[in-house]
Amino acid sequence: MTSQPDCIFCKIVAAQVPCYKLYEDEQVLAMLDIGPLSRGHCLILPREHYRTLAEMPDELGAACGRVAPRLCRAIMAATGASASNLLQNNGRIAHQAIDHVHFHIIPKYDAESGLGIHWPAGKLDSEEARSLVDAITAAMT
Amino acid sequence: MTSQPDCIFCKIVAAQVPCYKLYEDEQVLAMLDIGPLSRGHCLILPREHYRTLAEMPDELGAACGRVAPRLCRAIMAATGASASNLLQNNGRIAHQAIDHVHFHIIPKYDAESGLGIHWPAGKLDSEEARSLVDAITAAMT
Repeated sequence: MTSQPDCIFCKIVAAQVPCYKLYEDEQVLAMLDIGPLSRGHCLILPREHYRTLAEMPDELGAACGRVAPRLCRAIMAATGASASNLLQNNGRIAHQAIDHVHFHIIPKYDAESGLGIHWPAGKLDSEEARSLVDAITAAMT
Repeated sequence: MTSQPDCIFCKIVAAQVPCYKLYEDEQVLAMLDIGPLSRGHCLILPREHYRTLAEMPDELGAACGRVAPRLCRAIMAATGASASNLLQNNGRIAHQAIDHVHFHIIPKYDAESGLGIHWPAGKLDSEEARSLVDAITAAMT
């Protein structure tokens, strides 16, 4: 099991630091976020330590993804929230605060509560799109 | 296969509408977002139509989660982006524009590019936390 001695989430996984646990299985743990953006804000994390989504094995991505619908249903039922965002941040400039992969589920009760999103959408140029498709599909192999 | 005749993503899955496809398997399709927040912004979606994460079967959550690390690696390699956000929105007030579950992977090249996030973190009261743990774990069963 990959683990980092100075990682707060690894310490929580090892039960050296307490948490408000919501769910656990052999690969994944879910808990309340102690700095919630809204009531019911929770985290899903793999037990093993990986810094980012890109560094994580595909099967651990599946394990996190498998618990997300079920946990989201439970949060909505328990809190009465009508909407939510699932968010996973990679890198300091992308708002990652703890360097152990984690997925936020953040309930939204109205337009103001929960995660604030700024959405400066552009337009996809077809030449640019074709070059991206080539480069990304080549890198997928 | 669950499908909605007026859903643009169902039409893309059925190849009635074109897309810039990056990946597909029996359960999942990935493509470029045509209104990108940054270069390489892409979407992962289940072939079957479900409106929100909470409505989606757990195994489809796993299928989407399984492709996320691999696609993220490919996007980072192809674009040279140093950071990224994975985001999935449920409900109009949570910025969901198309009512067919989809996960954004949005590269970030610097603090200004990509997804804009506002993070008004609160503090978790211990009494509130215990009541949330009870309510959410009860709803998980």
